[in-house]
Amino acid sequence: MEKIEPQNVKGFRDLLPQYAYRKNEIVSTIRKVYERYGFLPVETPGLEYLEILLGEYGEENTKQIFRFKSPEEQDVALRFDLTVPLARIVAQYNDLPKPFKRYQVGSVWRADKPDPGRFREFTQFDADVVGTSSQLAEAEVIGAVVGALEEIGVGKFSVNVNSRKVLNAVVEYSGIPAGRAKDVFRVLDKLNKIGMPNVELELTKGRRDVSGDFIPGLGLTDINVGKIKDYLALPKGERKRVLGELAGLLGPESCEDLKKLDGFLDVLGLDSEVVSFDPTIARGLDYYTGPVFEVNLTDKPQFGSVAGGGRYDNLVQRFTDASLPAVGFSIGVDRLLAALGEGNDKAAFSEVVVTIMDRDKAGEYLKIASELRQAGVRTDLYLGQEKGLRKQLQYADRVNARFAVIVGSNEIEKGVVTIKDLRAGENVSKDAAQREEWLKKSREIQKEVPRKELTAEILRLLAL
Amino acid sequence: MEKIEPQNVKGFRDLLPQYAYRKNEIVSTIRKVYERYGFLPVETPGLEYLEILLGEYGEENTKQIFRFKSPEEQDVALRFDLTVPLARIVAQYNDLPKPFKRYQVGSVWRADKPDPGRFREFTQFDADVVGTSSQLAEAEVIGAVVGALEEIGVGKFSVNVNSRKVLNAVVEYSGIPAGRAKDVFRVLDKLNKIGMPNVELELTKGRRDVSGDFIPGLGLTDINVGKIKDYLALPKGERKRVLGELAGLLGPESCEDLKKLDGFLDVLGLDSEVVSFDPTIARGLDYYTGPVFEVNLTDKPQFGSVAGGGRYDNLVQRFTDASLPAVGFSIGVDRLLAALGEGNDKAAFSEVVVTIMDRDKAGEYLKIASELRQAGVRTDLYLGQEKGLRKQLQYADRVNARFAVIVGSNEIEKGVVTIKDLRAGENVSKDAAQREEWLKKSREIQKEVPRKELTAEILRLLAL
Repeated sequence: MEKIEPQNVKGFRDLLPQYAYRKNEIVSTIRKVYERYGFLPVETPGLEYLEILLGEYGEENTKQIFRFKSPEEQDVALRFDLTVPLARIVAQYNDLPKPFKRYQVGSVWRADKPDPGRFREFTQFDADVVGTSSQLAEAEVIGAVVGALEEIGVGKFSVNVNSRKVLNAVVEYSGIPAGRAKDVFRVLDKLNKIGMPNVELELTKGRRDVSGDFIPGLGLTDINVGKIKDYLALPKGERKRVLGELAGLLGPESCEDLKKLDGFLDVLGLDSEVVSFDPTIARGLDYYTGPVFEVNLTDKPQFGSVAGGGRYDNLVQRFTDASLPAVGFSIGVDRLLAALGEGNDKAAFSEVVVTIMDRDKAGEYLKIASELRQAGVRTDLYLGQEKGLRKQLQYADRVNARFAVIVGSNEIEKGVVTIKDLRAGENVSKDAAQREEWLKKSREIQKEVPRKELTAEILRLLAL
Repeated sequence: MEKIEPQNVKGFRDLLPQYAYRKNEIVSTIRKVYERYGFLPVETPGLEYLEILLGEYGEENTKQIFRFKSPEEQDVALRFDLTVPLARIVAQYNDLPKPFKRYQVGSVWRADKPDPGRFREFTQFDADVVGTSSQLAEAEVIGAVVGALEEIGVGKFSVNVNSRKVLNAVVEYSGIPAGRAKDVFRVLDKLNKIGMPNVELELTKGRRDVSGDFIPGLGLTDINVGKIKDYLALPKGERKRVLGELAGLLGPESCEDLKKLDGFLDVLGLDSEVVSFDPTIARGLDYYTGPVFEVNLTDKPQFGSVAGGGRYDNLVQRFTDASLPAVGFSIGVDRLLAALGEGNDKAAFSEVVVTIMDRDKAGEYLKIASELRQAGVRTDLYLGQEKGLRKQLQYADRVNARFAVIVGSNEIEKGVVTIKDLRAGENVSKDAAQREEWLKKSREIQKEVPRKELTAEILRLLAL
């Protein structure tokens, strides 16, 4: 038979056990924290009618929507984010609680240029509040994201906040027509990625990117750009200082909502080390109307922003006359996973592997595994064809098991089993005292125990 | 602005909080049980190259694959199940443990005729063992599914098992060429859905379905069909009896693997009440080669099979020369969810809603919510525009909160808060003594407590 090459579609990838396991941990933690903040879960389908998605992401992003025909020959598309589907459902269902605080985790698809570390399907974990213009809602989503990142243990991070109202004032201050504002924001959003000289080119005459493609410029004047540069040179970080500078340059009304938010963040005990105001933050999507946020890992800036969001007061109006101002924050789970790595290399998937020494007595081994599982022990039973112990222990090591249970025909007759600690050979700690203590424990368990005492003994060892 | 109608693509649907919450519970439970059985998680993308998917599902199913072009103009498709992607990854990655026991949960897409209760995107939760021909593997996946369904609490259910080897013997016994076997199995798979008279028509001259479409028949003779009917008339249920009957009609070699499996099921303490042998089970997918299984809910047969699977020893060979016999079992999470309903109507999403009586002191309310959350209490803060208490309590009821915290300006000055039990008006029990006890408790909590004692008091009340 001719073989089909086993491969992923360009731009897609698989998560093998170590990463998939870690991702589950991250998702579970975020879910727990978001529920603690009063967000309720929803699920929407991967597919939406194309018209639902068009027109809110900006031209460049819209090109990245995976689109095709449904069996009914209608234009459909894979969802590009979880925000537009949320706007759809709050318009579609009248009986949702209002304001509606929802979380959703799921894949989104973007036909981006594939890049190392950049994939066309990735998982977003969003928390949004729909139906309030109060900056309490901003405080809620920021608080929830900070809580989730702390509970995951991502190390030092900062939430960097700006506002589209500030940016609109900058556009006016710079003498740029309001109709160009969104184009300007999309260019400013690239600042951290491409640097000021390239931003300046994209604001004016355009530039060639690394692959030689020409990116047309916005045609702004030197005077326009000079004013934008004045603004971008403002200090960032300490919130009250930034508020003062913004009020000075652009007028106090430009940053009224940031001022309210600042007060609520004070109440939450979130100082400028954790949540800073940063005039260079713009975000790339067209639908934002107020505060915008992104999160960077302080010690791993190369991973870019691991979460982003903002206020979008007009998005729901595409679908309904009801006024439903909204704000949300989305964690990029895969980017976070990439930054955190696969976690503890030796995370035990299974706690115990039961080896099979006498194939004719397979039922005996199945019974042992079954007993351990009923006691809540994560137990694998070796199911392969290898008869030797060495290969089976290699398998146990491969699935990161802590203990192997070994029983030959003689032991079955004698009514005993052997428990082997598979980490006995490892350098678990460099601290001599800890290591001594641990070696004492591990020596203790290199022993035969009566078959009847196996489960109790394993439970005892796991609790050590 | 012209409004876009907020609606789902035909055949798709949303899960609102009550159902999404319940689905999360089901998925978490299955995950926990599968990990206890030693299955490791993987994630594969929603998209696969079309050629990866073609040729293994059978003609009718293949028509249901959502297919389109990638940005590189390659033929791609949404995954139809999680089994073929698994076959791909075990061929693609050499460093996986062998045998590979993996679980995966995710959406699959089928452009089926949309029907009430039948959707084009649904969630499968699969457990498979790749790389062993031992029936221990069948016992492992059946044990894991039984464990998961018991832990979810689905009520009475039965796993019904047959074997493609038995069915191949039936085809031979009936005088049908082996090349027609898969066509016959696809028709037999419909037996429970369409009944014997329609199956008979599809095996012979064809029939019109309810919508008037003609389903061509296989053109078998009356003699062929008579023999199949002899076989289908065999008793089902008690495993050892079925094994005897099968051996009698088709020869003992036809059910050797079922016999081995029976022994392992005995070891696991799974009797014929839980796992029965059923000659009418066929399964619809082409790739099965050995035992096949499906699960029905005894008291809710109208939901059809809520899980299905079987052995597929040749599927991986599409991608590699290595011999990797495999077996798997897939739980249809959405069908299970539909059968179980949204669960407890009053499941508390949030335990507490903090109402806002004095909007100028919003920070105070945020502080209260923040304190409760830090103590681990699932706490919502009312973020809407309503100023009156009544509307805010309606909101709290809408999100199923147990308690409302109410603080007016006076109370803030006095340093007190009011806790209200939102279920005080409900008929929690029909048992008079229980109800009296409960009313005593609920009276106790209609009270003002010092602001400083709020968190401790809420924790105390939740623990009652």
